[in-house]
Amino acid sequence: MLRPLAVVLSLAASASAIWPAPISMTQGNSTLWLTQTVEITYNGDFMPYTYGYTPTGPDWTSKDIVQGGVSRALGQIFGDYFVPWMLHTREEQATFEPKVMSNKTWIESLEITQTGEDSEDTWKAAAGEVDESYSLSLSKDGKAKIGAASSIGVLHALQTFTQLFYRHSGGPFWYTPMAPIDIEDSPTFAHRGLLMDVSRHYFPMEDIYRTLDALSWNKMNRLHIHATDSQSWPLEIPSLPEVSAKGAYHPSLVYTPTDLKNIQEYGAMRAVQVIIEIDMPGHIGVLGESHPELVVAYDERPYYWWCAQPPCGALRLNNSDVDEFLGTLFEDLLPRVSPYSSYFHTGGDELNANDSMLDPGVQSNDTEVLKPLLQNFIDLNHGRVKDAGLTPIVWEEMAIDWDIDMDPETTVVQSWLGTVSNLTEKGFKVIDTNYNFWYLDCGRGQWLTFDNDANATFYPFNDWCGPTKPWQLIYSHDPTEGLPEEQAKLVIGGEVAAWSETIDPANMDTLVWPRAGAAAEVLWSGRYDADGEPRSQLDAAPRLQEMRARMVTRGVKASPITQQWCVQMGGDPLACSYDLNPYGH
Amino acid sequence: MLRPLAVVLSLAASASAIWPAPISMTQGNSTLWLTQTVEITYNGDFMPYTYGYTPTGPDWTSKDIVQGGVSRALGQIFGDYFVPWMLHTREEQATFEPKVMSNKTWIESLEITQTGEDSEDTWKAAAGEVDESYSLSLSKDGKAKIGAASSIGVLHALQTFTQLFYRHSGGPFWYTPMAPIDIEDSPTFAHRGLLMDVSRHYFPMEDIYRTLDALSWNKMNRLHIHATDSQSWPLEIPSLPEVSAKGAYHPSLVYTPTDLKNIQEYGAMRAVQVIIEIDMPGHIGVLGESHPELVVAYDERPYYWWCAQPPCGALRLNNSDVDEFLGTLFEDLLPRVSPYSSYFHTGGDELNANDSMLDPGVQSNDTEVLKPLLQNFIDLNHGRVKDAGLTPIVWEEMAIDWDIDMDPETTVVQSWLGTVSNLTEKGFKVIDTNYNFWYLDCGRGQWLTFDNDANATFYPFNDWCGPTKPWQLIYSHDPTEGLPEEQAKLVIGGEVAAWSETIDPANMDTLVWPRAGAAAEVLWSGRYDADGEPRSQLDAAPRLQEMRARMVTRGVKASPITQQWCVQMGGDPLACSYDLNPYGH
Repeated sequence: MLRPLAVVLSLAASASAIWPAPISMTQGNSTLWLTQTVEITYNGDFMPYTYGYTPTGPDWTSKDIVQGGVSRALGQIFGDYFVPWMLHTREEQATFEPKVMSNKTWIESLEITQTGEDSEDTWKAAAGEVDESYSLSLSKDGKAKIGAASSIGVLHALQTFTQLFYRHSGGPFWYTPMAPIDIEDSPTFAHRGLLMDVSRHYFPMEDIYRTLDALSWNKMNRLHIHATDSQSWPLEIPSLPEVSAKGAYHPSLVYTPTDLKNIQEYGAMRAVQVIIEIDMPGHIGVLGESHPELVVAYDERPYYWWCAQPPCGALRLNNSDVDEFLGTLFEDLLPRVSPYSSYFHTGGDELNANDSMLDPGVQSNDTEVLKPLLQNFIDLNHGRVKDAGLTPIVWEEMAIDWDIDMDPETTVVQSWLGTVSNLTEKGFKVIDTNYNFWYLDCGRGQWLTFDNDANATFYPFNDWCGPTKPWQLIYSHDPTEGLPEEQAKLVIGGEVAAWSETIDPANMDTLVWPRAGAAAEVLWSGRYDADGEPRSQLDAAPRLQEMRARMVTRGVKASPITQQWCVQMGGDPLACSYDLNPYGH
Repeated sequence: MLRPLAVVLSLAASASAIWPAPISMTQGNSTLWLTQTVEITYNGDFMPYTYGYTPTGPDWTSKDIVQGGVSRALGQIFGDYFVPWMLHTREEQATFEPKVMSNKTWIESLEITQTGEDSEDTWKAAAGEVDESYSLSLSKDGKAKIGAASSIGVLHALQTFTQLFYRHSGGPFWYTPMAPIDIEDSPTFAHRGLLMDVSRHYFPMEDIYRTLDALSWNKMNRLHIHATDSQSWPLEIPSLPEVSAKGAYHPSLVYTPTDLKNIQEYGAMRAVQVIIEIDMPGHIGVLGESHPELVVAYDERPYYWWCAQPPCGALRLNNSDVDEFLGTLFEDLLPRVSPYSSYFHTGGDELNANDSMLDPGVQSNDTEVLKPLLQNFIDLNHGRVKDAGLTPIVWEEMAIDWDIDMDPETTVVQSWLGTVSNLTEKGFKVIDTNYNFWYLDCGRGQWLTFDNDANATFYPFNDWCGPTKPWQLIYSHDPTEGLPEEQAKLVIGGEVAAWSETIDPANMDTLVWPRAGAAAEVLWSGRYDADGEPRSQLDAAPRLQEMRARMVTRGVKASPITQQWCVQMGGDPLACSYDLNPYGH
């Protein structure tokens, strides 16, 4: 067998296990051991790493944030039982671990230096307004150093730090085999998010917390909570208690104001900003449960005349009761959003003009009639969002299909239909969530049911956006692909989306992870490497497998991306590759 | 809104919650309450239902088996906290449960009558050799009766019994709202299985136990364990200890003889026969770890010249060392299989003729050369299987592609390529596992990785058998479709397959359930109803959703098949249907 290059690649591939890949990294092959009494300093002061240190916000100090990060990072390293046998072949099992000798070189200090000052806005900063970069070094003699301009950068550095270490199978010892290490790192995109839909299925707090943890491990910094839709309204609004009382799937399946605050703080402390979306004026039928006077077409049938999926329902337009209701809603909710986020998402996708035919105040599906009404609606409500100190985000239909006039300076548009360039041409800042690449829910079939007379039409019952997007496809997507440089700058980042028609707590982890991580590397490290080449799956796969294994150890039920044999052969990336030129290397 | 029929369907759909659907069932709408002191008799004798009653086999008595079933059924009813709020709309939440009044009608007795005698072979019977039918009745005044010819039938009846009951949210009360009930039930197909691949990923015992439980709840009666493949050999063979010592992914990831016995007994007590497959002569490369002299092409590259996926590897043909090795293997393993199964699966899929070019004793890929060698191989080894009192099962390639001469009376052929009729024409008994319908692993993308130069060729990285098979497609498949009646009789049943290239304990439940249940209903109840009409998704969906909810309550992470709103609208099946003729009803 002719495989000289496999050996070379083997060395290269085992070189770095960090996910997402740092922008710049050098490393050696010396072993250092991490002692549980490692002395940690922050800007020169001793920092204890009490397990589970959790300050209460939003009036944190930078030290609070960093100490929380240190507590979690050390807790992960020492608390996870991550012996990476699964990353090594059978033959390597006896040799992949360093010998536990008495003359260990210990990492005795971790010196954290924050070179800049955080502002009170650091932990809720808009895209580009906080410096997330960091440096991390580990000298051969055991001195670890982290430097960053912001506490956010320190948190990222600490997550990288955790990925350097493994547990030893022979006892309570933790080591890194890659010293000395020098890393300089910073994100390519400022907005790196996951959309979680808590309306089509409800997710208990523990699922949201676990997801926030997993996002932070992958250096993703946004959790976009699609909080309401036509199906259910789980978000408790104290001034409008009837909305969730009647609109949640069950009276117990709500997020109280305290829950929301806990979610926001849990995220903020992990450098994950939580962004709340109330989708409107479509996708809000559930208000028909508590406020039938405000909506039209709720559960109207056949649904496909009125909306994209059952149950239908949209706000009435040009209606003062709606305006007043939203005023009350925003007055209640937005002051609870603004301490933790720069953004509020007002939805705006898939509005079906037919709905307004059922609106007694409109009775038309003529876009010429509807457009000015919609313009008023957006002006009024985006004005309210801005008055609360927040930047509105809207789905692209408002900007493209309805051509609503919105100020590009103060509005962010989220694209899902693949029309990023149409938006950047208009000067909008864009979040890319191209469904052809980054919709994590796609490809598992219809969730509608079909009577026998419809079977022939819908056979074999595939969904609209399948097949499932494999990690390789997710990894291939660059949100700025094909854009001129000036327009590329407007793309603040992207989100992968976990629409929850067929996702609930039972299967969420398996569908989100590790595929969201594939997008995380594109968004953090960039689709192209330092040489301008597309990042290769051969380099990525072993690292993603390792990251997945770490995540499973930490309690996230991430799916395997390949068989165990291939994971163990990770050091030989050609083992499970389709090698077009087997003798060409 | 015009939906008179919705109301009618609503009543019809809520009528029966049993999965899979009984062949015949009548029911009422009276509520009966199940007391924890229900008196149970078996053939007239008092039967205690000690929780967790677990006799040791294989020398069970029928009473042991029934008592185990009673223990589990009552344990499920009283132990699950299955308050079915999620099956009812918001409006129904206050009313769907019966009032907890003092004048309850209690079910005070469950009288189990087994009309036939079990033989020592009952719990390992071949297809068609045990009567699985049962009757179950519940009178309006609270007398429950189960009748069955075999203890297997009693076990099925008990599983149906559990599905009649719900927990009351108001306290420790359990009720059925559907009395009186009369059920006559029996399976359409005798072989109703799941293939679980424990070679590409290892599954701990708890995952196998949980899967056996879930199979039994769905009245599936076969767990086909694909125990070995080229990737790993987790099955410990005491007379050949080196095979798993060197062939398991890790020395700890093995099934000991005790493990195997425990799996077999756990299944047998639940009417699930465990069938072991050792795939050969292909798909056995892993022997190269312990017995390189027996295999060719182990991890040969590029893999696609030698086999379907890495690592390659096949047994040498016409080789006395191989014959001797298999003799030792079978002598060790088969006596441990035969107490619990009528079958032993010898594999036989995807043998690549090129492998024998590397075989020093053959040096040819000419099928005319190979076929007689393969004939000898099958003759010898199927002879050994039969000598051990077992019926060999082989994959279809042996019968079709290689046209090996095998006795249809004493050989079962498993079809995955959709060629059932070719096999029945030859007179073989057939297990149908058509990959276009019943492969549960398909459609989530490639698990190989591709270097940048191969991206264009393999983009968008779909796997070979996608897209994912939705439950509706699985449900549409009749294993006897298009067969003349005489040949249809030869189809003993089917299996859904969970090949584990990208399935491990993290995501197995989500991919197997409830989709395996869709096949379970086809196999138990038949694809066609009593009127000869294909069973409708509109009838099936609410029942499958309920079954899925029960399974989640019982700790199986089955995936949702639709959004929560549709589940709650289950009583109105048109709510989440694509209604081609909205005004035609």
